[in-house]
Amino acid sequence: MMQDYHYETELEVRDYECDIQGIVNNAVYQNYLEYCRHKFLNQTGFSFAQLHDEGIDAVVIRAELDYKYPLSPGDVFLARLKMVKKGQLRIIFEQQIVRKSDKKLIINARITTVLTRNGRPVSPEVLEEKFKKAGIVIEEE
Amino acid sequence: MMQDYHYETELEVRDYECDIQGIVNNAVYQNYLEYCRHKFLNQTGFSFAQLHDEGIDAVVIRAELDYKYPLSPGDVFLARLKMVKKGQLRIIFEQQIVRKSDKKLIINARITTVLTRNGRPVSPEVLEEKFKKAGIVIEEE
Amino acid sequence: MMQDYHYETELEVRDYECDIQGIVNNAVYQNYLEYCRHKFLNQTGFSFAQLHDEGIDAVVIRAELDYKYPLSPGDVFLARLKMVKKGQLRIIFEQQIVRKSDKKLIINARITTVLTRNGRPVSPEVLEEKFKKAGIVIEEE
Amino acid sequence: MMQDYHYETELEVRDYECDIQGIVNNAVYQNYLEYCRHKFLNQTGFSFAQLHDEGIDAVVIRAELDYKYPLSPGDVFLARLKMVKKGQLRIIFEQQIVRKSDKKLIINARITTVLTRNGRPVSPEVLEEKFKKAGIVIEEE
Repeated sequence: MMQDYHYETELEVRDYECDIQGIVNNAVYQNYLEYCRHKFLNQTGFSFAQLHDEGIDAVVIRAELDYKYPLSPGDVFLARLKMVKKGQLRIIFEQQIVRKSDKKLIINARITTVLTRNGRPVSPEVLEEKFKKAGIVIEEE
Repeated sequence: MMQDYHYETELEVRDYECDIQGIVNNAVYQNYLEYCRHKFLNQTGFSFAQLHDEGIDAVVIRAELDYKYPLSPGDVFLARLKMVKKGQLRIIFEQQIVRKSDKKLIINARITTVLTRNGRPVSPEVLEEKFKKAGIVIEEE
Repeated sequence: MMQDYHYETELEVRDYECDIQGIVNNAVYQNYLEYCRHKFLNQTGFSFAQLHDEGIDAVVIRAELDYKYPLSPGDVFLARLKMVKKGQLRIIFEQQIVRKSDKKLIINARITTVLTRNGRPVSPEVLEEKFKKAGIVIEEE
Repeated sequence: MMQDYHYETELEVRDYECDIQGIVNNAVYQNYLEYCRHKFLNQTGFSFAQLHDEGIDAVVIRAELDYKYPLSPGDVFLARLKMVKKGQLRIIFEQQIVRKSDKKLIINARITTVLTRNGRPVSPEVLEEKFKKAGIVIEEE
């Protein structure tokens, strides 16, 4: 279990997110995880739409997802994340989804991102300053 | 404006629901509207997943959507509905989406549905009984 | 049946487009219809991504969809469209989806659009010129 | 580069699959990869919808995706896969997406699956028999 996370948000499965098997389609979890990351960044003062207009994009370069148990229609769940720095350029989001009612682990994920300006990798220093102001310390992995 | 609705739920635009134009993609509003209908029906004691297992499906036969103003990333909005009966078989959902902050009208929709059992239209009487118990009176159009 | 259409493209249902009911989710048809319109416009020399960069967006202001019969996993189908001009500003796409194997009508749709430049409606004259060059005459409704 | 793959299918980016950044959203690649796997299995005589009705589901337990380069609106691409067996229960799909025009590598993925019958893992022997008939030999990893 994730011990100390930086952010947690509550969501609910929507019927159209489920497929023929009657459970949430695998790809949809990436939507949930992205929502959690963007929501977290928004609350720290970032907007993906605004950053994109300034030529800055946060780019996922690797995603690892361990599917533990499927979500079903109507399930309420918690998406959590912890940010970790790796080397000079990579920021890793350790993410987790748990069912709210019984804290059953649904998915464990590790999303590796880099920041780019006009397509080229840049140091996430600008973000770190903002995070510091928001009281968030990003540990090295 | 919709005067007296049967149900209202609050939602928020997610970044992945927006397309190249930077606004919510047209198809996604049908997801929002479906979510609002199912959520309403769930609260009245219906589950689409469960009904489907019993051979009963609620089928949309016509959708009319008037797009008034687009939703943008991060927008919080209200989805509302009012149910109306038309003839013996049709249940119409008059639906509306408004931006929460200023009540700006985003979309007006009219979704016509029929209930089917094993693929054949059936009277929505069973549902009406449940609605009555929940204190919801379905007017004729 | 649509007699003389301007464009037709072949598509195939993908499993993830189907929901718990085992058939294509209602919202997905709007994706299919949009794909058909954009594909048609691309072949006439338009690109939505490029137009958007120039401040020009094609905006759907009304969608009417008559769901006749559902598509199932693996179904191959044809999406067709006919463009009609209405008044000075509106371009209407009459669209149809039919199953390829037996030409069964799946959906009839009527999508009303306007062209905007920086958010304000503009005459579709620029487009019409291009259409003329491509040998496409847009009739008045 | 993937040397010898069991299956390859051609696809094209659809505008609605792209997000605010103007490129295909990360989650959508999982849709592409799933489509490729199902299409492959269909051609070998399997149907996910049919298997599900028999109580058999193919379940993804782990997904690893390396995003190398983004797809843009209109891009035509090839999705390829190679099946590998690991231990008694796991079937791994090594997958790759390359842009058709210049064979640029877009994504490398490794999708680990198990077969379940009524929710419990079962040996993929039944599938292997069918694969053998189709001339496909599944190597051990």
